[in-house]
Amino acid sequence: MRVLMPDLPEFRALTAEGLTALPYRNGALPEGEAEGVVLWGADAPTRAGLFARPGLRWVLTLTAGIDHVQGQLPPGVALYNASPLHARAVAVHTLAGMLAAARGLHRFRDAQREGRWQPRHDLGTLEGTGVVVWGYGHIGRILEGLLAPHGARVTGLRSATPPTERDAALAGADWLVLLLPGTPQTRGIVNADVLARLKPGAWLSNQGRGSLVDPDALLAALDSGHLGGAVLDVTDPEPLPPGHPLWERENVIITPHIASTTADLTARGARYTRAFLEVMAAGQEPEGRVAEGKGY
Amino acid sequence: MRVLMPDLPEFRALTAEGLTALPYRNGALPEGEAEGVVLWGADAPTRAGLFARPGLRWVLTLTAGIDHVQGQLPPGVALYNASPLHARAVAVHTLAGMLAAARGLHRFRDAQREGRWQPRHDLGTLEGTGVVVWGYGHIGRILEGLLAPHGARVTGLRSATPPTERDAALAGADWLVLLLPGTPQTRGIVNADVLARLKPGAWLSNQGRGSLVDPDALLAALDSGHLGGAVLDVTDPEPLPPGHPLWERENVIITPHIASTTADLTARGARYTRAFLEVMAAGQEPEGRVAEGKGY
Repeated sequence: MRVLMPDLPEFRALTAEGLTALPYRNGALPEGEAEGVVLWGADAPTRAGLFARPGLRWVLTLTAGIDHVQGQLPPGVALYNASPLHARAVAVHTLAGMLAAARGLHRFRDAQREGRWQPRHDLGTLEGTGVVVWGYGHIGRILEGLLAPHGARVTGLRSATPPTERDAALAGADWLVLLLPGTPQTRGIVNADVLARLKPGAWLSNQGRGSLVDPDALLAALDSGHLGGAVLDVTDPEPLPPGHPLWERENVIITPHIASTTADLTARGARYTRAFLEVMAAGQEPEGRVAEGKGY
Repeated sequence: MRVLMPDLPEFRALTAEGLTALPYRNGALPEGEAEGVVLWGADAPTRAGLFARPGLRWVLTLTAGIDHVQGQLPPGVALYNASPLHARAVAVHTLAGMLAAARGLHRFRDAQREGRWQPRHDLGTLEGTGVVVWGYGHIGRILEGLLAPHGARVTGLRSATPPTERDAALAGADWLVLLLPGTPQTRGIVNADVLARLKPGAWLSNQGRGSLVDPDALLAALDSGHLGGAVLDVTDPEPLPPGHPLWERENVIITPHIASTTADLTARGARYTRAFLEVMAAGQEPEGRVAEGKGY
Protein backbone atom coordinates (compact mmCIF):
# COMPACT_ATOMS: atom_id res chain seq x y z
CA MET A 1 0.00 0.00 0.00
CA ARG A 2 1.68 3.17 -1.24
CA VAL A 3 0.58 6.19 0.80
CA LEU A 4 1.60 9.83 0.49
CA MET A 5 2.37 11.07 3.99
CA PRO A 6 3.61 14.34 5.52
CA ASP A 7 7.41 14.55 5.69
CA LEU A 8 7.50 15.03 9.45
CA PRO A 9 9.46 13.05 12.06
CA GLU A 10 6.27 11.67 13.64
CA PHE A 11 5.15 10.24 10.29
CA ARG A 12 8.61 9.09 9.15
CA ALA A 13 8.70 6.96 12.32
CA LEU A 14 5.39 5.36 11.37
CA THR A 15 5.59 1.79 10.15
CA ALA A 16 2.82 -0.67 9.30
CA GLU A 17 2.80 -4.02 7.54
CA GLY A 18 2.74 -3.64 3.78
CA LEU A 19 3.03 0.15 3.96
CA THR A 20 5.23 2.10 1.57
CA ALA A 21 5.27 5.66 2.82
CA LEU A 22 5.89 8.40 0.25
CA PRO A 23 6.81 11.56 2.18
CA TYR A 24 5.67 14.88 0.70
CA ARG A 25 6.26 18.49 1.58
CA ASN A 26 4.60 21.64 0.33
CA GLY A 27 5.89 22.08 -3.20
CA ALA A 28 7.80 18.76 -3.16
CA LEU A 29 5.83 15.67 -4.18
CA PRO A 30 7.42 12.25 -4.72
CA GLU A 31 7.00 10.39 -8.03
CA GLY A 32 4.76 7.44 -8.83
CA GLU A 33 1.35 6.00 -8.09
CA ALA A 34 -0.29 6.14 -4.67
CA GLU A 35 -3.37 4.52 -3.27
CA GLY A 36 -3.88 6.92 -0.40
CA VAL A 37 -3.03 10.40 0.88
CA VAL A 38 -2.73 11.46 4.50
CA LEU A 39 -3.39 15.20 4.46
CA TRP A 40 -1.74 17.39 7.08
CA GLY A 41 -0.40 20.90 6.62
CA ALA A 42 -0.58 20.78 2.81
CA ASP A 43 -1.21 24.08 1.03
CA ALA A 44 -3.72 24.40 -1.84
CA PRO A 45 -1.30 23.75 -4.77
CA THR A 46 0.20 20.75 -2.95
CA ARG A 47 -3.27 19.36 -2.27
CA ALA A 48 -4.10 19.70 -5.97
CA GLY A 49 -0.94 17.78 -6.84
CA LEU A 50 -1.70 15.06 -4.29
CA PHE A 51 -5.28 14.62 -5.49
CA ALA A 52 -4.15 14.24 -9.12
CA ARG A 53 -2.01 11.20 -8.24
CA PRO A 54 -2.67 8.16 -10.48
CA GLY A 55 -4.31 5.24 -8.67
CA LEU A 56 -5.69 7.37 -5.83
CA ARG A 57 -8.46 5.59 -3.93
CA TRP A 58 -8.71 7.42 -0.62
CA VAL A 59 -7.77 10.60 1.28
CA LEU A 60 -7.52 10.88 5.04
CA THR A 61 -7.51 14.48 6.22
CA LEU A 62 -6.29 14.76 9.81
CA THR A 63 -8.65 17.67 10.36
CA ALA A 64 -12.24 17.74 11.61
CA GLY A 65 -13.52 20.12 8.93
CA ILE A 66 -13.33 19.19 5.25
CA ASP A 67 -14.17 22.51 3.58
CA HIS A 68 -10.58 22.72 2.26
CA VAL A 69 -10.99 19.38 0.46
CA GLN A 70 -14.62 19.36 -0.59
CA GLY A 71 -15.22 19.60 -4.34
CA GLN A 72 -11.56 19.01 -5.16
CA LEU A 73 -11.42 15.21 -5.04
CA PRO A 74 -11.68 13.16 -8.24
CA PRO A 75 -14.90 11.12 -8.47
CA GLY A 76 -14.76 7.80 -6.65
CA VAL A 77 -12.02 8.81 -4.22
CA ALA A 78 -13.14 8.11 -0.64
CA LEU A 79 -12.70 10.90 1.90
CA TYR A 80 -12.14 10.35 5.62
CA ASN A 81 -11.84 13.01 8.30
CA ALA A 82 -10.41 12.72 11.82
CA SER A 83 -12.95 14.31 14.14
CA PRO A 84 -12.03 12.13 17.16
CA LEU A 85 -8.51 13.58 17.03
CA HIS A 86 -9.85 17.05 17.73
CA ALA A 87 -13.04 16.70 19.72
CA ARG A 88 -11.68 16.83 23.27
CA ALA A 89 -9.33 19.78 22.73
CA VAL A 90 -12.10 21.79 21.03
CA ALA A 91 -14.50 21.08 23.90
CA VAL A 92 -11.85 22.07 26.46
CA HIS A 93 -10.96 25.20 24.49
CA THR A 94 -14.63 26.17 24.34
CA LEU A 95 -15.03 25.81 28.11
CA ALA A 96 -11.79 27.75 28.66
CA GLY A 97 -13.18 30.69 26.68
CA MET A 98 -16.50 30.62 28.52
CA LEU A 99 -14.80 30.60 31.92
CA ALA A 100 -12.34 33.32 30.89
CA ALA A 101 -15.29 35.52 29.92
CA ALA A 102 -17.21 34.73 33.13
CA ARG A 103 -14.18 35.47 35.32
CA GLY A 104 -13.07 38.55 33.34
CA LEU A 105 -9.63 37.11 32.57
CA HIS A 106 -9.39 39.07 29.30
CA ARG A 107 -9.96 42.37 31.10
CA PHE A 108 -7.56 41.51 33.92
CA ARG A 109 -4.93 40.64 31.31
CA ASP A 110 -5.38 44.06 29.73
CA ALA A 111 -4.97 45.65 33.18
CA GLN A 112 -1.90 43.48 33.85
CA ARG A 113 -0.15 44.70 30.70
CA GLU A 114 -0.58 48.23 32.10
CA GLY A 115 0.54 47.23 35.60
CA ARG A 116 -2.88 48.04 37.10
CA TRP A 117 -4.34 46.15 40.11
CA GLN A 118 -8.00 46.84 39.40
CA PRO A 119 -10.66 44.62 41.00
CA ARG A 120 -14.05 44.52 39.31
CA HIS A 121 -17.36 43.05 40.39
CA ASP A 122 -19.07 42.08 37.13
CA LEU A 123 -17.88 38.49 37.42
CA GLY A 124 -19.76 35.22 37.61
CA THR A 125 -19.68 31.48 37.32
CA LEU A 126 -21.62 29.35 34.83
CA GLU A 127 -24.09 28.21 37.50
CA GLY A 128 -27.63 28.37 36.24
CA THR A 129 -26.64 29.69 32.81
CA GLY A 130 -28.39 28.47 29.69
CA VAL A 131 -25.92 27.17 27.10
CA VAL A 132 -27.20 26.47 23.60
CA VAL A 133 -24.84 24.30 21.56
CA TRP A 134 -25.60 24.66 17.85
CA GLY A 135 -24.07 21.72 16.04
CA TYR A 136 -24.54 19.16 18.76
CA GLY A 137 -22.36 16.17 17.88
CA HIS A 138 -19.36 14.47 19.46
CA ILE A 139 -17.67 17.72 20.56
CA GLY A 140 -20.94 19.04 21.96
CA ARG A 141 -21.44 15.93 24.08
CA ILE A 142 -17.92 16.22 25.52
CA LEU A 143 -18.57 19.91 26.24
CA GLU A 144 -21.81 19.00 27.99
CA GLY A 145 -19.87 16.62 30.22
CA LEU A 146 -17.33 19.32 31.05
CA LEU A 147 -20.14 21.79 31.84
CA ALA A 148 -22.16 19.41 34.01
CA PRO A 149 -20.39 20.11 37.32
CA HIS A 150 -20.73 23.86 36.66
CA GLY A 151 -24.51 23.74 36.94
CA ALA A 152 -25.14 25.04 33.41
CA ARG A 153 -28.20 23.91 31.43
CA VAL A 154 -27.17 22.66 27.96
CA THR A 155 -29.56 22.57 25.01
CA GLY A 156 -28.30 20.98 21.80
CA LEU A 157 -29.48 22.14 18.38
CA ARG A 158 -29.05 20.11 15.20
CA SER A 159 -29.89 20.87 11.62
CA ALA A 160 -33.06 18.80 12.12
CA THR A 161 -34.25 20.90 15.10
CA PRO A 162 -37.57 22.57 14.15
CA PRO A 163 -37.32 26.40 13.93
CA THR A 164 -39.83 27.03 16.75
CA GLU A 165 -37.87 24.77 19.07
CA ARG A 166 -34.63 26.42 18.02
CA ASP A 167 -36.01 29.92 18.64
CA ALA A 168 -37.28 28.91 22.09
CA ALA A 169 -33.80 27.63 22.95
CA LEU A 170 -32.15 30.83 21.70
CA ALA A 171 -34.48 32.95 23.87
CA GLY A 172 -33.16 31.20 26.98
CA ALA A 173 -29.49 31.33 26.03
CA ASP A 174 -26.86 33.09 28.11
CA TRP A 175 -24.33 31.46 25.78
CA LEU A 176 -24.68 30.44 22.15
CA VAL A 177 -21.88 28.03 21.26
CA LEU A 178 -21.34 27.29 17.55
CA LEU A 179 -19.80 23.94 16.63
CA LEU A 180 -21.36 23.66 13.16
CA PRO A 181 -19.32 22.69 10.09
CA GLY A 182 -18.73 25.15 7.28
CA THR A 183 -21.09 24.26 4.42
CA PRO A 184 -23.15 26.27 1.93
CA GLN A 185 -26.17 25.58 4.18
CA THR A 186 -24.55 26.94 7.35
CA ARG A 187 -23.07 30.08 5.78
CA GLY A 188 -24.36 33.12 7.66
CA ILE A 189 -26.74 30.96 9.70
CA VAL A 190 -26.12 33.22 12.70
CA ASN A 191 -27.58 36.42 11.31
CA ALA A 192 -29.12 39.55 12.85
CA ASP A 193 -32.39 37.72 13.51
CA VAL A 194 -30.70 34.89 15.42
CA LEU A 195 -28.57 37.30 17.49
CA ALA A 196 -31.65 39.40 18.34
CA ARG A 197 -33.38 36.29 19.73
CA LEU A 198 -30.69 35.80 22.39
CA LYS A 199 -31.14 37.20 25.89
CA PRO A 200 -29.70 40.72 26.25
CA GLY A 201 -26.11 40.35 27.45
CA ALA A 202 -25.72 36.83 26.08
CA TRP A 203 -22.29 35.79 24.78
CA LEU A 204 -21.47 34.09 21.49
CA SER A 205 -18.75 31.44 21.20
CA ASN A 206 -17.78 30.45 17.68
CA GLN A 207 -15.55 27.37 17.60
CA GLY A 208 -16.91 26.07 14.29
CA ARG A 209 -16.23 28.14 11.18
CA GLY A 210 -16.00 31.89 10.63
CA SER A 211 -18.53 31.64 7.80
CA LEU A 212 -21.30 30.67 10.25
CA VAL A 213 -21.71 34.23 11.51
CA ASP A 214 -22.78 37.25 9.48
CA PRO A 215 -19.86 39.58 10.26
CA ASP A 216 -21.88 42.80 10.00
CA ALA A 217 -24.62 41.44 12.25
CA LEU A 218 -21.98 40.43 14.81
CA LEU A 219 -20.45 43.91 14.92
CA ALA A 220 -23.90 45.52 15.09
CA ALA A 221 -24.96 43.29 18.02
CA LEU A 222 -21.73 44.13 19.84
CA ASP A 223 -22.18 47.86 19.07
CA SER A 224 -25.73 47.93 20.39
CA GLY A 225 -24.68 46.09 23.56
CA HIS A 226 -27.30 43.38 22.95
CA LEU A 227 -24.47 40.85 22.79
CA GLY A 228 -22.47 40.81 26.02
CA GLY A 229 -19.37 39.68 24.15
CA ALA A 230 -17.92 37.00 21.91
CA VAL A 231 -15.26 34.31 22.05
CA LEU A 232 -14.03 33.63 18.53
CA ASP A 233 -11.59 30.94 17.46
CA VAL A 234 -12.68 31.38 13.85
CA THR A 235 -13.48 34.60 12.02
CA ASP A 236 -14.67 36.01 8.72
CA PRO A 237 -12.37 36.99 7.15
CA GLU A 238 -9.76 34.57 8.47
CA PRO A 239 -7.06 35.25 9.41
CA LEU A 240 -8.48 38.46 10.84
CA PRO A 241 -6.49 41.22 9.10
CA PRO A 242 -4.61 43.94 10.98
CA GLY A 243 -6.86 46.89 11.77
CA HIS A 244 -10.10 44.85 11.76
CA PRO A 245 -12.55 46.35 14.30
CA LEU A 246 -12.92 43.04 16.20
CA TRP A 247 -9.30 43.18 17.40
CA GLU A 248 -9.96 46.34 19.40
CA ARG A 249 -13.06 45.22 21.27
CA GLU A 250 -12.50 44.65 24.95
CA ASN A 251 -15.39 42.17 25.18
CA VAL A 252 -14.23 40.00 22.27
CA ILE A 253 -11.76 37.20 23.00
CA ILE A 254 -9.95 36.06 19.85
CA THR A 255 -7.83 32.96 19.40
CA PRO A 256 -6.28 32.15 15.99
CA HIS A 257 -8.09 28.93 14.95
CA ILE A 258 -6.26 26.77 17.48
CA ALA A 259 -9.21 25.25 19.36
CA SER A 260 -8.06 21.76 18.40
CA THR A 261 -4.33 22.39 18.71
CA THR A 262 -2.28 20.59 21.33
CA ALA A 263 1.50 20.29 21.50
CA ASP A 264 1.19 16.56 20.79
CA LEU A 265 -1.28 16.91 17.91
CA THR A 266 1.14 15.77 15.19
CA ALA A 267 2.17 12.77 17.30
CA ARG A 268 -1.48 11.96 17.94
CA GLY A 269 -2.18 12.43 14.23
CA ALA A 270 0.53 9.91 13.38
CA ARG A 271 -0.88 7.39 15.88
CA TYR A 272 -4.36 7.97 14.46
CA THR A 273 -2.96 7.38 10.95
CA ARG A 274 -1.29 4.10 11.94
CA ALA A 275 -4.54 2.79 13.44
CA PHE A 276 -6.37 3.92 10.30
CA LEU A 277 -3.91 2.11 8.03
CA GLU A 278 -4.13 -1.07 10.11
CA VAL A 279 -7.91 -1.13 9.77
CA MET A 280 -7.63 -0.50 6.04
CA ALA A 281 -4.91 -3.16 5.60
CA ALA A 282 -7.25 -5.63 7.30
CA GLY A 283 -9.79 -4.91 4.54
CA GLN A 284 -12.18 -3.16 6.91
CA GLU A 285 -13.81 0.26 6.70
CA PRO A 286 -12.07 2.83 8.93
CA GLU A 287 -13.97 5.41 10.96
CA GLY A 288 -14.66 8.89 9.62
CA ARG A 289 -15.89 8.22 6.07
CA VAL A 290 -17.49 11.37 4.68
CA ALA A 291 -20.62 10.57 2.70
CA GLU A 292 -20.41 11.60 -0.96
CA GLY A 293 -21.76 15.14 -1.42
CA LYS A 294 -21.92 15.80 2.32
CA GLY A 295 -20.15 18.91 3.53
CA TYR A 296 -18.92 17.46 6.82
CA MET B 1 -30.97 41.77 68.72
CA ARG B 2 -29.00 44.91 67.77
CA VAL B 3 -26.60 44.17 64.91
CA LEU B 4 -24.19 46.48 63.11
CA MET B 5 -24.60 45.87 59.37
CA PRO B 6 -23.13 47.35 56.19
CA ASP B 7 -25.08 50.37 54.91
CA LEU B 8 -25.82 48.80 51.52
CA PRO B 9 -29.19 48.36 49.76
CA GLU B 10 -28.99 44.56 50.00
CA PHE B 11 -28.57 44.75 53.79
CA ARG B 12 -31.04 47.59 54.34
CA ALA B 13 -33.66 45.35 52.72
CA LEU B 14 -32.87 42.58 55.20
CA THR B 15 -35.46 42.00 57.89
CA ALA B 16 -35.67 39.29 60.54
CA GLU B 17 -37.80 38.88 63.65
CA GLY B 18 -36.40 40.81 66.60
CA LEU B 19 -33.60 42.35 64.54
CA THR B 20 -32.59 45.96 64.97
CA ALA B 21 -30.13 46.72 62.19
CA LEU B 22 -27.59 49.47 62.82
CA PRO B 23 -26.13 50.47 59.44
CA TYR B 24 -22.47 51.49 59.37
CA ARG B 25 -20.18 52.90 56.73
CA ASN B 26 -16.44 53.37 56.70
CA GLY B 27 -15.79 56.26 59.08
CA ALA B 28 -19.48 56.50 60.11
CA LEU B 29 -20.56 54.27 63.01
CA PRO B 30 -23.96 54.51 64.67
CA GLU B 31 -24.26 55.07 68.44
CA GLY B 32 -25.17 52.58 71.14
CA GLU B 33 -24.64 48.98 72.15
CA ALA B 34 -24.62 46.10 69.70
CA GLU B 35 -24.63 42.37 70.18
CA GLY B 36 -23.26 41.49 66.77
CA VAL B 37 -21.32 42.83 63.79
CA VAL B 38 -21.68 41.74 60.17
CA LEU B 39 -18.35 42.63 58.59
CA TRP B 40 -18.26 43.50 54.88
CA GLY B 41 -16.09 46.11 53.19
CA ALA B 42 -15.01 47.75 56.47
CA ASP B 43 -11.55 49.33 56.54
CA ALA B 44 -9.14 48.84 59.47
CA PRO B 45 -10.14 51.91 61.53
CA THR B 46 -13.83 51.12 61.06
CA ARG B 47 -13.23 47.50 62.12
CA ALA B 48 -11.47 48.76 65.26
CA GLY B 49 -14.48 50.98 66.05
CA LEU B 50 -16.91 48.11 65.46
CA PHE B 51 -14.96 45.70 67.64
CA ALA B 52 -14.84 48.22 70.53
CA ARG B 53 -18.65 48.35 70.69
CA PRO B 54 -20.09 47.76 74.20
CA GLY B 55 -22.02 44.51 74.57
CA LEU B 56 -20.39 42.84 71.55
CA ARG B 57 -20.83 39.05 71.61
CA TRP B 58 -20.16 37.93 68.02
CA VAL B 59 -18.70 38.97 64.66
CA LEU B 60 -19.68 37.46 61.31
CA THR B 61 -17.16 38.24 58.59
CA LEU B 62 -18.62 37.59 55.14
CA THR B 63 -15.20 36.53 53.92
CA ALA B 64 -13.54 33.13 53.83
CA GLY B 65 -10.20 34.30 55.27
CA ILE B 66 -10.01 35.85 58.73
CA ASP B 67 -6.46 37.22 58.75
CA HIS B 68 -7.87 40.81 58.74
CA VAL B 69 -9.80 40.08 61.97
CA GLN B 70 -7.55 37.71 63.86
CA GLY B 71 -5.96 39.12 67.00
CA GLN B 72 -8.18 42.21 66.96
CA LEU B 73 -11.29 40.82 68.65
CA PRO B 74 -11.86 41.39 72.38
CA PRO B 75 -11.65 38.18 74.45
CA GLY B 76 -14.86 36.17 74.51
CA VAL B 77 -16.26 37.56 71.24
CA ALA B 78 -17.22 34.69 68.92
CA LEU B 79 -15.96 34.87 65.35
CA TYR B 80 -17.74 33.32 62.36
CA ASN B 81 -16.56 33.27 58.77
CA ALA B 82 -18.56 32.60 55.58
CA SER B 83 -16.58 30.07 53.58
CA PRO B 84 -19.63 28.52 51.87
CA LEU B 85 -20.37 31.92 50.30
CA HIS B 86 -17.08 31.83 48.40
CA ALA B 87 -16.17 28.21 47.78
CA ARG B 88 -17.77 27.64 44.36
CA ALA B 89 -16.59 30.88 42.77
CA VAL B 90 -13.02 30.27 43.99
CA ALA B 91 -13.04 26.73 42.58
CA VAL B 92 -14.42 27.97 39.24
CA HIS B 93 -11.89 30.81 39.15
CA THR B 94 -9.08 28.34 39.82
CA LEU B 95 -10.17 26.10 36.95
CA ALA B 96 -10.56 29.14 34.67
CA GLY B 97 -6.94 30.10 35.30
CA MET B 98 -5.68 26.57 34.70
CA LEU B 99 -7.56 26.29 31.42
CA ALA B 100 -6.47 29.77 30.31
CA ALA B 101 -2.85 28.73 30.86
CA ALA B 102 -3.30 25.38 29.09
CA ARG B 103 -4.98 27.01 26.08
CA GLY B 104 -2.61 30.01 25.95
CA LEU B 105 -5.42 32.55 26.34
CA HIS B 106 -3.10 35.03 28.07
CA ARG B 107 -0.68 35.00 25.15
CA PHE B 108 -3.44 35.21 22.55
CA ARG B 109 -4.86 38.21 24.43
CA ASP B 110 -1.47 39.91 24.22
CA ALA B 111 -1.39 39.20 20.47
CA GLN B 112 -4.96 40.48 20.10
CA ARG B 113 -4.08 43.83 21.67
CA GLU B 114 -1.44 44.15 18.94
CA GLY B 115 -3.80 42.98 16.19
CA ARG B 116 -1.71 39.87 15.49
CA TRP B 117 -3.22 36.55 14.30
CA GLN B 118 -0.48 34.28 15.55
CA PRO B 119 -1.22 30.56 16.02
CA ARG B 120 1.01 28.64 18.41
CA HIS B 121 1.38 24.96 19.11
CA ASP B 122 2.43 24.79 22.77
CA LEU B 123 -1.14 24.23 23.90
CA GLY B 124 -2.74 21.41 25.83
CA THR B 125 -5.66 20.17 27.84
CA LEU B 126 -5.61 19.02 31.46
CA GLU B 127 -5.89 15.35 30.45
CA GLY B 128 -3.47 13.20 32.40
CA THR B 129 -2.05 16.14 34.35
CA GLY B 130 -1.19 15.78 38.02
CA VAL B 131 -2.85 18.47 40.12
CA VAL B 132 -1.75 18.87 43.73
CA VAL B 133 -4.19 20.89 45.82
CA TRP B 134 -2.48 22.19 48.96
CA GLY B 135 -5.14 23.16 51.47
CA TYR B 136 -7.65 20.50 50.55
CA GLY B 137 -10.98 21.50 52.11
CA HIS B 138 -14.39 22.47 50.80
CA ILE B 139 -13.04 24.53 47.85
CA GLY B 140 -10.61 21.77 46.95
CA ARG B 141 -13.37 19.18 46.81
CA ILE B 142 -15.46 21.39 44.51
CA LEU B 143 -12.39 21.94 42.32
CA GLU B 144 -11.80 18.20 42.18
CA GLY B 145 -15.37 17.75 40.92
CA LEU B 146 -14.84 20.40 38.23
CA LEU B 147 -11.58 18.73 37.17
CA ALA B 148 -12.96 15.19 37.06
CA PRO B 149 -14.27 15.27 33.46
CA HIS B 150 -10.94 16.76 32.32
CA GLY B 151 -9.05 13.58 33.17
CA ALA B 152 -6.71 15.26 35.68
CA ARG B 153 -5.39 13.36 38.70
CA VAL B 154 -5.98 15.36 41.90
CA THR B 155 -3.94 14.86 45.07
CA GLY B 156 -4.99 16.77 48.16
CA LEU B 157 -2.48 17.92 50.78
CA ARG B 158 -3.47 18.99 54.28
CA SER B 159 -1.41 20.35 57.14
CA ALA B 160 -1.45 16.82 58.57
CA THR B 161 0.03 15.23 55.42
CA PRO B 162 3.44 13.71 56.30
CA PRO B 163 6.39 15.48 54.59
CA THR B 164 7.49 12.39 52.63
CA GLU B 165 3.99 11.95 51.24
CA ARG B 166 3.82 15.67 50.44
CA ASP B 167 7.16 15.60 48.62
CA ALA B 168 6.12 12.58 46.57
CA ALA B 169 2.96 14.41 45.52
CA LEU B 170 4.94 17.54 44.57
CA ALA B 171 7.29 15.48 42.38
CA GLY B 172 4.33 14.36 40.26
CA ALA B 173 2.68 17.75 40.00
CA ASP B 174 2.05 19.52 36.70
CA TRP B 175 0.02 22.02 38.73
CA LEU B 176 0.42 23.08 42.35
CA VAL B 177 -2.78 24.80 43.49
CA LEU B 178 -2.65 26.72 46.78
CA LEU B 179 -5.88 27.09 48.74
CA LEU B 180 -4.30 27.41 52.18
CA PRO B 181 -5.35 30.13 54.65
CA GLY B 182 -2.94 32.87 55.65
CA THR B 183 -1.58 32.04 59.10
CA PRO B 184 1.84 32.38 60.78
CA GLN B 185 2.32 28.64 60.06
CA THR B 186 1.64 28.94 56.32
CA ARG B 187 3.75 32.07 55.73
CA GLY B 188 6.35 31.31 53.05
CA ILE B 189 5.36 27.61 53.04
CA VAL B 190 5.99 27.53 49.28
CA ASN B 191 9.69 28.28 49.31
CA ALA B 192 12.58 27.53 46.94
CA ASP B 193 12.76 23.91 48.17
CA VAL B 194 9.07 23.25 47.45
CA LEU B 195 9.24 24.86 44.02
CA ALA B 196 12.35 22.83 43.14
CA ARG B 197 10.47 19.61 43.93
CA LEU B 198 7.87 20.27 41.22
CA LYS B 199 8.26 18.79 37.76
CA PRO B 200 10.16 21.09 35.37
CA GLY B 201 7.58 23.19 33.55
CA ALA B 202 4.94 22.82 36.29
CA TRP B 203 2.59 25.76 36.94
CA LEU B 204 1.72 27.33 40.28
CA SER B 205 -1.79 28.60 41.04
CA ASN B 206 -2.14 30.69 44.19
CA GLN B 207 -5.77 31.31 45.11
CA GLY B 208 -5.14 31.32 48.86
CA ARG B 209 -3.04 34.14 50.26
CA GLY B 210 -0.04 36.02 48.88
CA SER B 211 1.93 35.27 52.05
CA LEU B 212 2.00 31.54 51.23
CA VAL B 213 4.70 31.97 48.58
CA ASP B 214 8.22 33.26 49.14
CA PRO B 215 8.25 36.08 46.56
CA ASP B 216 11.98 35.84 45.80
CA ALA B 217 11.77 32.07 45.32
CA LEU B 218 8.84 32.55 42.95
CA LEU B 219 10.71 35.04 40.78
CA ALA B 220 13.83 32.83 40.78
CA ALA B 221 11.84 29.76 39.71
CA LEU B 222 10.25 31.76 36.90
CA ASP B 223 13.64 33.20 35.89
CA SER B 224 15.28 29.78 35.73
CA GLY B 225 12.41 28.39 33.67
CA HIS B 226 11.86 25.58 36.20
CA LEU B 227 8.36 26.93 36.77
CA GLY B 228 6.32 26.95 33.56
CA GLY B 229 4.26 29.86 34.82
CA ALA B 230 1.95 31.05 37.56
CA VAL B 231 -1.66 32.06 38.00
CA LEU B 232 -1.92 34.46 40.93
CA ASP B 233 -5.08 35.87 42.43
CA VAL B 234 -3.15 36.90 45.54
CA THR B 235 0.33 38.37 45.74
CA ASP B 236 3.02 39.54 48.13
CA PRO B 237 2.96 42.50 48.35
CA GLU B 238 -0.75 43.00 47.70
CA PRO B 239 -1.94 44.95 45.84
CA LEU B 240 0.99 44.37 43.52
CA PRO B 241 2.56 47.82 43.09
CA PRO B 242 3.16 49.46 39.69
CA GLY B 243 6.52 48.41 38.25
CA HIS B 244 6.67 45.08 40.11
CA PRO B 245 8.50 42.50 37.95
CA LEU B 246 5.56 40.04 38.06
CA TRP B 247 3.37 42.39 35.99
CA GLU B 248 5.68 42.10 33.00
CA ARG B 249 5.95 38.33 32.82
CA GLU B 250 4.19 36.80 29.87
CA ASN B 251 3.75 33.46 31.66
CA VAL B 252 2.20 34.93 34.81
CA ILE B 253 -1.55 35.48 34.87
CA ILE B 254 -2.58 37.98 37.54
CA THR B 255 -6.07 38.68 38.83
CA PRO B 256 -6.63 41.23 41.62
CA HIS B 257 -7.89 39.07 44.53
CA ILE B 258 -11.30 38.49 42.97
CA ALA B 259 -11.41 34.68 42.93
CA SER B 260 -14.53 34.69 45.08
CA THR B 261 -16.16 37.74 43.50
CA THR B 262 -19.42 37.43 41.63
CA ALA B 263 -21.79 40.22 40.60
CA ASP B 264 -24.35 38.91 43.07
CA LEU B 265 -21.92 38.47 45.99
CA THR B 266 -23.38 41.26 48.13
CA ALA B 267 -26.91 39.94 47.55
CA ARG B 268 -25.74 36.42 48.41
CA GLY B 269 -23.94 37.84 51.46
CA ALA B 270 -27.18 39.46 52.64
CA ARG B 271 -29.09 36.19 52.19
CA TYR B 272 -26.35 34.34 54.05
CA THR B 273 -26.59 36.92 56.85
CA ARG B 274 -30.37 36.54 57.17
CA ALA B 275 -30.07 32.75 57.45
CA PHE B 276 -27.29 33.23 60.01
CA LEU B 277 -29.43 35.61 62.10
CA GLU B 278 -32.40 33.24 61.97
CA VAL B 279 -30.30 30.38 63.31
CA MET B 280 -28.91 32.65 66.02
CA ALA B 281 -32.36 34.01 66.93
CA ALA B 282 -33.53 30.41 67.36
CA GLY B 283 -30.80 29.99 69.99
CA GLN B 284 -28.78 27.59 67.83
CA GLU B 285 -25.13 27.71 66.83
CA PRO B 286 -24.65 28.98 63.23
CA GLU B 287 -22.17 27.45 60.82
CA GLY B 288 -18.66 28.86 60.43
CA ARG B 289 -17.54 29.34 64.04
CA VAL B 290 -13.78 29.89 64.10
CA ALA B 291 -12.17 28.06 66.99
CA GLU B 292 -10.41 30.38 69.48
CA GLY B 293 -6.76 30.84 68.54
CA LYS B 294 -7.20 29.16 65.16
CA GLY B 295 -6.06 31.15 62.15
CA TYR B 296 -8.81 29.99 59.79
